Amino acid sequence: MKAVQFREAGRPPEVVEVPEPEPGPGQVLLKVTAAGVCHSDFVVMQSPAELGIGLPLTLGHEGAGTVARLGAGVTGLDVGESVAVYGPWGCGTCPECAQGKENYCRRAAALGIRPPGLGAPGAIAEYLLVDAPRHLVPLGDLDPVKTVSLTDAGLTPYHAIKGALPRLVPGSTAVVIGAGGLGHVGIQLLRALSSARVIALDVSDAKLELAKEVGAHEAVKSDDKAVARVRELTGGFGAQAVFDFVGAPPTTAIATGVASTEADVAIVGIGGGTATVGFGAIAYDASVRSPYWGSRSELVEVLDLARAGAVDVHIETYSIDEAPTAYRRLHDGEISGRAVIVPN
Amino acid sequence: MKAVQFREAGRPPEVVEVPEPEPGPGQVLLKVTAAGVCHSDFVVMQSPAELGIGLPLTLGHEGAGTVARLGAGVTGLDVGESVAVYGPWGCGTCPECAQGKENYCRRAAALGIRPPGLGAPGAIAEYLLVDAPRHLVPLGDLDPVKTVSLTDAGLTPYHAIKGALPRLVPGSTAVVIGAGGLGHVGIQLLRALSSARVIALDVSDAKLELAKEVGAHEAVKSDDKAVARVRELTGGFGAQAVFDFVGAPPTTAIATGVASTEADVAIVGIGGGTATVGFGAIAYDASVRSPYWGSRSELVEVLDLARAGAVDVHIETYSIDEAPTAYRRLHDGEISGRAVIVPN
Amino acid sequence: MKAVQFREAGRPPEVVEVPEPEPGPGQVLLKVTAAGVCHSDFVVMQSPAELGIGLPLTLGHEGAGTVARLGAGVTGLDVGESVAVYGPWGCGTCPECAQGKENYCRRAAALGIRPPGLGAPGAIAEYLLVDAPRHLVPLGDLDPVKTVSLTDAGLTPYHAIKGALPRLVPGSTAVVIGAGGLGHVGIQLLRALSSARVIALDVSDAKLELAKEVGAHEAVKSDDKAVARVRELTGGFGAQAVFDFVGAPPTTAIATGVASTEADVAIVGIGGGTATVGFGAIAYDASVRSPYWGSRSELVEVLDLARAGAVDVHIETYSIDEAPTAYRRLHDGEISGRAVIVPN
Amino acid sequence: MKAVQFREAGRPPEVVEVPEPEPGPGQVLLKVTAAGVCHSDFVVMQSPAELGIGLPLTLGHEGAGTVARLGAGVTGLDVGESVAVYGPWGCGTCPECAQGKENYCRRAAALGIRPPGLGAPGAIAEYLLVDAPRHLVPLGDLDPVKTVSLTDAGLTPYHAIKGALPRLVPGSTAVVIGAGGLGHVGIQLLRALSSARVIALDVSDAKLELAKEVGAHEAVKSDDKAVARVRELTGGFGAQAVFDFVGAPPTTAIATGVASTEADVAIVGIGGGTATVGFGAIAYDASVRSPYWGSRSELVEVLDLARAGAVDVHIETYSIDEAPTAYRRLHDGEISGRAVIVPN
Repeated sequence: MKAVQFREAGRPPEVVEVPEPEPGPGQVLLKVTAAGVCHSDFVVMQSPAELGIGLPLTLGHEGAGTVARLGAGVTGLDVGESVAVYGPWGCGTCPECAQGKENYCRRAAALGIRPPGLGAPGAIAEYLLVDAPRHLVPLGDLDPVKTVSLTDAGLTPYHAIKGALPRLVPGSTAVVIGAGGLGHVGIQLLRALSSARVIALDVSDAKLELAKEVGAHEAVKSDDKAVARVRELTGGFGAQAVFDFVGAPPTTAIATGVASTEADVAIVGIGGGTATVGFGAIAYDASVRSPYWGSRSELVEVLDLARAGAVDVHIETYSIDEAPTAYRRLHDGEISGRAVIVPN
Repeated sequence: MKAVQFREAGRPPEVVEVPEPEPGPGQVLLKVTAAGVCHSDFVVMQSPAELGIGLPLTLGHEGAGTVARLGAGVTGLDVGESVAVYGPWGCGTCPECAQGKENYCRRAAALGIRPPGLGAPGAIAEYLLVDAPRHLVPLGDLDPVKTVSLTDAGLTPYHAIKGALPRLVPGSTAVVIGAGGLGHVGIQLLRALSSARVIALDVSDAKLELAKEVGAHEAVKSDDKAVARVRELTGGFGAQAVFDFVGAPPTTAIATGVASTEADVAIVGIGGGTATVGFGAIAYDASVRSPYWGSRSELVEVLDLARAGAVDVHIETYSIDEAPTAYRRLHDGEISGRAVIVPN
Repeated sequence: MKAVQFREAGRPPEVVEVPEPEPGPGQVLLKVTAAGVCHSDFVVMQSPAELGIGLPLTLGHEGAGTVARLGAGVTGLDVGESVAVYGPWGCGTCPECAQGKENYCRRAAALGIRPPGLGAPGAIAEYLLVDAPRHLVPLGDLDPVKTVSLTDAGLTPYHAIKGALPRLVPGSTAVVIGAGGLGHVGIQLLRALSSARVIALDVSDAKLELAKEVGAHEAVKSDDKAVARVRELTGGFGAQAVFDFVGAPPTTAIATGVASTEADVAIVGIGGGTATVGFGAIAYDASVRSPYWGSRSELVEVLDLARAGAVDVHIETYSIDEAPTAYRRLHDGEISGRAVIVPN
Repeated sequence: MKAVQFREAGRPPEVVEVPEPEPGPGQVLLKVTAAGVCHSDFVVMQSPAELGIGLPLTLGHEGAGTVARLGAGVTGLDVGESVAVYGPWGCGTCPECAQGKENYCRRAAALGIRPPGLGAPGAIAEYLLVDAPRHLVPLGDLDPVKTVSLTDAGLTPYHAIKGALPRLVPGSTAVVIGAGGLGHVGIQLLRALSSARVIALDVSDAKLELAKEVGAHEAVKSDDKAVARVRELTGGFGAQAVFDFVGAPPTTAIATGVASTEADVAIVGIGGGTATVGFGAIAYDASVRSPYWGSRSELVEVLDLARAGAVDVHIETYSIDEAPTAYRRLHDGEISGRAVIVPN
């Protein structure tokens, strides 16, 4: 079958022919219907060795497919069923996995378990081998091509936002920093899940425009006046929740600067910045955390939101042979929204 | 191998010889180290057909064992490892199972999935077939014989109590109705998990004695003055949490009668009683619920409590050949604490 | 000044002349801008003695006004400021009041503290004496006439709904029984606060029409097929939250009948019904409670929702001299939405 | 009356004669039974102007007394009643105060409201004027001398710990950094409120000794091997909750270094350090916050714990004339536990 692989440091992803995988006992083989291309793939391709990832690597940690073959002992799934893949695979039995928080599995590293596309063979291929049926969520009538990005670009902001919901009472404010791939989904999620006022920050006017289109109440230039502007918009009090989807040094400083007393601040982006917490450095009891991806039940909830029409990811589609082009365009900032590969 | 089966309505459990089970793909075979005998087995034996349970049925929904053989595809477990069995098996993939709440699986009935000893072959046998490794919790150094009862008689009160913990702030009161099998564990759990004052109610003086031994601050006769007595002990305010491990008509009336404003009332016992909620029938915002068993991560937590020495189940042990005697003695009220079968 | 009083059992409310009250130390005198008429006033007028309410009683537990005079020692309020009155007055110091839950004050009864219009002189008068500034919430630009009903008809459903929000994840269902005064506000609140699907039940086609207008996704006749219909709409699973704003025997049975596992069921209406909880009587761990009014911070939140345009109460206005007519029309079911008295 | 005042920068506290205050409307005059001396008084005395505190300042933000006189309009309190003072006074009406979180009042600064001893005249005097009865908690039979320190040295750790309780399930670990005034109370609170294993860290062997005496399971030297040692004690996983009562640069680094995935980390001490949060800097979803003092209902709960015998503050007592000595000894590190002034 065809697969898009990262084969060697310094070389771009390439389309190669590899053997079609066989589902072993307890495994499921999917015929891929859609696979997402993501910025974090570049992080992997920059330093696979440091991340412990062997080459060649079939890319793609956002995947959807139809059930092609069931390994021995698999029940409760029908061949032909349309499913999305929960990506942050864990051991399934540790205390975190026992709550479906496989993104925080405490045994994955020790057992050598890795997500597809981030160590295990990924979804940008004609077929994808999934290690266990619990990592599949039925899509039903949802269009896999329009939906596949939600498995990461939807689930990651959803997980960050869900932890902040108790703070987002009526009259409260949520700040979204970065109105790009994750941010433009985050704004929609905040509108669907709460009555909070949403203020979007970005350095790009086009992104601020997009932010308002998808539901932000206010759009504020992300510059050295941003903290003052958000304080002004909130009567001096600050925002009860802050989501930094950039995570670079300037944005983490804004994130803590706009936080109100008892705020929830999530540094989601991996932009090399860190936030500082302590007496005088941030409002009292504002908590800062750095979440990662999301849980199994949260993916079910995100897909239910899509089913209700509450979230809409802007996508561009490519064939598997065009995947290298999609990566090049993403790298050059030419993708509007999210790139999706349709391999079959 | 030997197994203790309920074979025909009206006949007591009997020791029979059955084939040793084979672990299929994804399954695990345990050599049983301990299996608990429980009152609810009598409910099953009274009306298996109504409950949709086919005969013969190997009994035992509390089980522990050592890993004897691994089915194809099973990883992360070692042969010889000592484990406890999480009993309320579910599908593993529905929204509840995705959070480890398999006790509330929404697909189990439709898929014909049943707990061991309550439909699937149970633990009172030399070997037990477990459907998936996620249903096993490592015991480590814990003595399986002293611990096995916690998989139900510990997990069930733990689950009920955990939901009430936010109410059990310092200065609050918890009422435990019924200081028997589950109740005497519940009292210990409440003492370990909260700073609440614990008031135990029972009709039996011996049980009230036991209640005080295992940590109850007050022991009150469960009669028609009980509500007044609890109100008196709480300055008229009532208890912030109530656990009715009997669930009979007189106790459910006491349970709602002693509940304070915003109390959490759990009707755990299956004694044929129901509680009444509405304006004038119970204090404002006191919530009444009827929980069942517990979740996968809760079982891990209960076993960690045992490891810390915070809970101690009173047990009597029997060989597999003596299992029918254990059932007869339990039926006749002659068991002090919990009966455990040691089959190997 | 003019006041509308209930003076004698069996007689309707009447407009009388009473002395204008004087604010003592710590008290605040309001010039009333709006006062709501409520069904529960009839409960008071049917049995004032049983409820411990002395006559004559100035009616009105929903009130708004402008600050007319400040008693000695009152700071932080300006004369002329527009405010809404938090009605369920408590002692201000007990553990519940220390969290702003004065609706659940544990000392109010002992200290003889009563809400305005439900024991203390109420808001349907030219002036209203408020016992403490903490019972006032600034209205700012909100129109007091359109807003005053939210102090009860908004706060009561808000309080019930807020407790259920953790259950109302994407993909979940909320059932509202009774689409009248509280119910039509409750539907709007659910839409603003969650992404849940809202199913409204009522016996009246006109009310079901209103329910859909204000945002219900589904409207179902509240008859003996209602439970089956809701089960069908939820794939057999039931609703994760149920709000019974009627509270009569048929509706409480529906409320428990449609509840899913782990649902939150609130019996809000005082219609003489009670709900039954226990093994077999309701789904596992579905909790049933009977809340009352709401907390101080919840009133702030409800008013913030109104400020955001998320909730709109249908009202009819009357002068103070027309107040007896308003009561007569309410009694005869002729009020569409909520009646508001504008005394000045 | 006598009062202990800080009168001029650079001079130590001194005993002076000042007029006995008069309770205005809504105020309460206490005859002081006990007043605590605290490290943070030195912060105030170092830079009163920067903190906006006018001189002379009567010291003492931990106070207890008996009700001496009630201002006009005060009800619900009896002359002679023994009470503790809730110190972090707020406006009483903003959204935070409406939940009793006056420590986070959003209007206090604008309205010039300050805690006693930190701007308003403090408790180290014969009489203390309290602005409102809601700031008093009945002591009942509790000894005010032994209890007064809990109003800050108990409430502050309690507030920090309470936010972390949901993480402190059985099998979890809590780390306390600094086993001094607040830390030795924090350890006791953790033991009373949870089943977590408590690991205490300190640079002083004597403090580590004290830590074990008051209930710590493990005592670890707070040096550059501390993080590795805690990781080792927790099977590599880290601690689910961390309380840094020092807050200096070395301890904040330890605090984040020992935090597990999803941990709650509270930087309580004001030692000039800050914690760093972001991808790679701390475990996933570990949240770091800097709490301040506590809420009204939390003080009630702390005192209820004292009533139950669950917390015991080590104290030394001094007369009011000896207060300057107490301050000198505290400054020189000669106080074992907490110094309490008994002015009457």
